Amino acid sequence: METDRLLRELSNFLRIPSVSTLPEHNADCRAAADWVAAELRRLDCRDVQFLGSEMHPVVWGVGPDVPGAPTLLIYGHYDVQPPDPLGEWTSPPFEPTVRRGRLYARGAADDKGQVFCLLKAIEACGRPPVNLRFLIEGEEEYGSTVLFEVLEREPERTRADVVLVADMSYVAPGWPAVYTTLRGMCYAEITVRTAKSDLHSGEYGGAAPNAHEELCRLLARLKTPDGRIHIPGLYDTVKPPSRAERATWKRLPFKEKEFLKERVQAKALTGMKKYSVLERLWALPTFEIHGITGGFTGDGAKTVIPAEATAKVSLRLVPAQTLKTVQRQLAGAVKRLAPNYADATVRFLHGADPAEIEVTHPSYQLLDRAFKAVVGRGTVAARAGGSIPVVPALGKSGAPVILTGIGLPDDRLHAPDEKLDLTQLWDGIRVFRRFYELLGHKGA
Amino acid sequence: METDRLLRELSNFLRIPSVSTLPEHNADCRAAADWVAAELRRLDCRDVQFLGSEMHPVVWGVGPDVPGAPTLLIYGHYDVQPPDPLGEWTSPPFEPTVRRGRLYARGAADDKGQVFCLLKAIEACGRPPVNLRFLIEGEEEYGSTVLFEVLEREPERTRADVVLVADMSYVAPGWPAVYTTLRGMCYAEITVRTAKSDLHSGEYGGAAPNAHEELCRLLARLKTPDGRIHIPGLYDTVKPPSRAERATWKRLPFKEKEFLKERVQAKALTGMKKYSVLERLWALPTFEIHGITGGFTGDGAKTVIPAEATAKVSLRLVPAQTLKTVQRQLAGAVKRLAPNYADATVRFLHGADPAEIEVTHPSYQLLDRAFKAVVGRGTVAARAGGSIPVVPALGKSGAPVILTGIGLPDDRLHAPDEKLDLTQLWDGIRVFRRFYELLGHKGA
Repeated sequence: METDRLLRELSNFLRIPSVSTLPEHNADCRAAADWVAAELRRLDCRDVQFLGSEMHPVVWGVGPDVPGAPTLLIYGHYDVQPPDPLGEWTSPPFEPTVRRGRLYARGAADDKGQVFCLLKAIEACGRPPVNLRFLIEGEEEYGSTVLFEVLEREPERTRADVVLVADMSYVAPGWPAVYTTLRGMCYAEITVRTAKSDLHSGEYGGAAPNAHEELCRLLARLKTPDGRIHIPGLYDTVKPPSRAERATWKRLPFKEKEFLKERVQAKALTGMKKYSVLERLWALPTFEIHGITGGFTGDGAKTVIPAEATAKVSLRLVPAQTLKTVQRQLAGAVKRLAPNYADATVRFLHGADPAEIEVTHPSYQLLDRAFKAVVGRGTVAARAGGSIPVVPALGKSGAPVILTGIGLPDDRLHAPDEKLDLTQLWDGIRVFRRFYELLGHKGA
Repeated sequence: METDRLLRELSNFLRIPSVSTLPEHNADCRAAADWVAAELRRLDCRDVQFLGSEMHPVVWGVGPDVPGAPTLLIYGHYDVQPPDPLGEWTSPPFEPTVRRGRLYARGAADDKGQVFCLLKAIEACGRPPVNLRFLIEGEEEYGSTVLFEVLEREPERTRADVVLVADMSYVAPGWPAVYTTLRGMCYAEITVRTAKSDLHSGEYGGAAPNAHEELCRLLARLKTPDGRIHIPGLYDTVKPPSRAERATWKRLPFKEKEFLKERVQAKALTGMKKYSVLERLWALPTFEIHGITGGFTGDGAKTVIPAEATAKVSLRLVPAQTLKTVQRQLAGAVKRLAPNYADATVRFLHGADPAEIEVTHPSYQLLDRAFKAVVGRGTVAARAGGSIPVVPALGKSGAPVILTGIGLPDDRLHAPDEKLDLTQLWDGIRVFRRFYELLGHKGA
């Protein structure tokens, strides 16, 4: 492979700061969509078009017809997370830089690098023996609103024999995976109001309620130091991993100490100690506080008693929880935990049900063979802690959704110094090329 | 009195947005200092000068010599609190507006209106029979750093027979007061760090510590819903009010329900229920959370697990607590309450010891007579919930410090719609005129 050229092309893609959550990057998102559309045209796709939005369009394309061959729908996203905190990047997030065999840039692994990999594997085939369809969206980091609307209106876009989603990573170096679940998401703002307006702590301190104090207390009660979330009913529908899954997980080269030291980079792991770390990450719901607003947060000192405080929080959901039920449970718990002199409300920002995928379709065997051939080990069935809300919708036509990827667990997705190992990239191109060929020749 | 002219003059003073905590208002602070200096010159003061700072100078002046008469040092401040939240003002904060006999503007009561009152009482005297000295500072809302430095370097500036500080209010309409204590202040930032950098909740949620979660827990433990602050030793040196004080407070026209409904404007009062509300406000330490930073607080949804969270907090101190001890106690409590896997640190921003004033000097009787003559009731000895850190330094020469004022409890200091009742202003000018005359003729 001409690695220099490929690296140059990928760098051009990564250089576009296509941050979908920030309106000032709308033009950049559009530029990234243009980049994808141009690549599809280079691959002789027809009907290349933008669906659903001028700002963050879904890029659609149809590969050359291969009569009698199965149809493969390829999903990916060209948008990226915001790069902040900028000061913690070793090299600037939108100036792709190679250091010791790793390509550092926002989007290197999530998901531009993987979209690139899927496209270059097609190029490597020459003419892949499958019918290709593409849905490359620009709002994965922002709730996939546009793609959801498109699929609601035009469900036929997902008609395929197999759907391939390569937005994931290996479970460990040398251990490729297919994923059987994705956690769902319930993102919310909890607001506590205690008075009509902020008060002066000199005049009222000692007798007036403080919104931040009440919010902190409420949050401290919602999740205790043992890691348990105190939302009545929350764990009722959680499906424990099967005996087979637990057995597989035990065989994975996952070392708790290494995970703590090299990835979490903290002094200790937290959470419910009676479950293994992988079970906590893959098979249990979470509750996280992301930030708190209200009161005075500027430089210096101001002695207000805040009248209102808001926490951004989210829960990750696992099978067989549903977003709807968890929203109701959270709203109820907040009402119950707030003191009667405080108004506590919950506003839901976005969410997704968890996804569960049976990996029994023959196409999973083909991917397993492709990995085995290229990297020497087939895929392990794992679970994912993250969420790709649109996955259930992509599988609505009944086609199996293959959730896999070429990233590594230490790629620092959403964080400073996101990277992709170049060996993963080159291997990935070979793996997907082999997969397309196997799928075309063996049928699905 | 020519009330129209006076109102016009005061409005000119209030129109200057002399916010000392915001550097973009440095020129405005300087303009307010110029306004004060011009007034002093109009009152035939000599040696009018700016002390200690170009940006927020202390305005110094010496009134005409009155041989044999006592010397009165007048303290006040020309700086004001920031006006935000701007949207909650009925009329703009720096466009003084009279509605139903009240003058609305930032600084109307705290403290420009009162400085104005003290100056116009001198004008009303013609030639007051006392030797006057002025220290009108520009950083009262910002820690009084400049004035502290000036008094450290030139303690002779406070040499006087009586010090008058009119930065307070009546305890109720028709009830003027002198204050026997001021609460002190310990302003701090508590920071909890749990990991090297923010983490992705999809990858790490369930097993990684969350800085906001630990901070909320820590804050919830530092003060429980019963209002008790859990800092070991904190209450040890708190001096309970005397029997006489409690008896006086019981006679004050303070109605808890009215206080809640009209001033706090909340659903309930909080704090240590076994103490009266006035005791909670005046004679007990407080702990307030002012705001929390860290993590993600922008629009929309970002699923970070924050690595660091910081709370701005403050304690108000009461006699006989000391700042130094409370700082040590707070730092110790934070260390003790944080889990061993989190780094918890405390940074102290500014502080002040509480002040205790014996109101036995004859000059207190003169002020009492002045109020009695003008408003029909003398002064009640009360305590103050707020802090004026520089008060102890002003009394270092041994002169009695008279802490009084013409504001009302509902003046909304530091809040939107700060106001001064015009009857309080006109009465105030008469009261202080009478006080200057009594002090000059009776001696101190």
